[in-house]
Amino acid sequence: MNNRILKDIEFIVEIDKMKSILRQTKIIGENRREDDAEHSWHIAVMAMILCEYANDKIDIGKVIKMVLIHDLVEIYAGDTFCYDKEGNLGKRDREIAAADKIYGMLQDDKRKELRALWDEFEEMNTPESLFAASMDRLQPMLNNYHSDGGTWKKYKVTRSQVYNRIAPVKKSSDQIWDYIKFMIEDAYAKGLLEK
Amino acid sequence: MNNRILKDIEFIVEIDKMKSILRQTKIIGENRREDDAEHSWHIAVMAMILCEYANDKIDIGKVIKMVLIHDLVEIYAGDTFCYDKEGNLGKRDREIAAADKIYGMLQDDKRKELRALWDEFEEMNTPESLFAASMDRLQPMLNNYHSDGGTWKKYKVTRSQVYNRIAPVKKSSDQIWDYIKFMIEDAYAKGLLEK
Repeated sequence: MNNRILKDIEFIVEIDKMKSILRQTKIIGENRREDDAEHSWHIAVMAMILCEYANDKIDIGKVIKMVLIHDLVEIYAGDTFCYDKEGNLGKRDREIAAADKIYGMLQDDKRKELRALWDEFEEMNTPESLFAASMDRLQPMLNNYHSDGGTWKKYKVTRSQVYNRIAPVKKSSDQIWDYIKFMIEDAYAKGLLEK
Repeated sequence: MNNRILKDIEFIVEIDKMKSILRQTKIIGENRREDDAEHSWHIAVMAMILCEYANDKIDIGKVIKMVLIHDLVEIYAGDTFCYDKEGNLGKRDREIAAADKIYGMLQDDKRKELRALWDEFEEMNTPESLFAASMDRLQPMLNNYHSDGGTWKKYKVTRSQVYNRIAPVKKSSDQIWDYIKFMIEDAYAKGLLEK
């Protein structure tokens, strides 16, 4: 048996830890926080379903791979809540060290491929990475909207914070942006978001 | 706003339920059963990492989409443990009714695309569906192997039952098959599998 496949299996076993990295967002209708594996699965399927609405021609296979692996760094760096200002200090450094560690488990060619996908996701300046970021940010909003406000209410998040967070969609999809405006305004009218 | 995107959003909200469908397999190192969303994410990344070992040329984008949506039927049909003979009676009928319901939430073109992926996965006679089935069956084995036997020990599963379950790999990848023989024989030697 070659050493290459044994390295791959070690990586596959290591990333099982994604199932224990909790996010702030809760599962709809349940009093349980979702984890990174669940979130990554959900946004990968969202990308499949919503890709037709992308403004630019996108390589959907690449988007799906990107969202599947974009949160692996959180195995070591932990999840940082997007509206937590203090927690976000130093986030970039923590995540780069984590990326070196997790992608470094793979042999050179695969390490480079996955790291390039993560770097592109982080830089957010290609049609694929903008669409991937849009899925990543829309999913917790849908869960909050369908959970009586969820973390929005818990942390007194404002309407403008949400508009700011979801801004990548403005570049990636006019049609999804129309839906988002409707959702945010409706959530605000229902008192799920602060002024 | 068009009705089409509202239908898509309804579907995306509905499939959040995958996070509450528990499988028998446990997370490595934790006393918690994994759910369908976690499992589907894990095997999608496995497909990315292991596709180089496929015997035939495969469309990896198609394999990933297939594994991401193959368990959606379990939202209504529930998870059936692979070694539970009684539970597997009627499984096919339950899952077809569930497929009609979940994929039926989408508009015609998307319903057809996702249903075709699921049908191909179930029939298991293309290189892509054989590789997808291989990932689906290998993942719980890796978790058992790295959890002191897990469900193998709990349900007194035999070595030949495991060889039978993992047989699709024999067709889809010689190199992964070599690893599997090593893993099963090692698990047997360590007393994690019955004779």
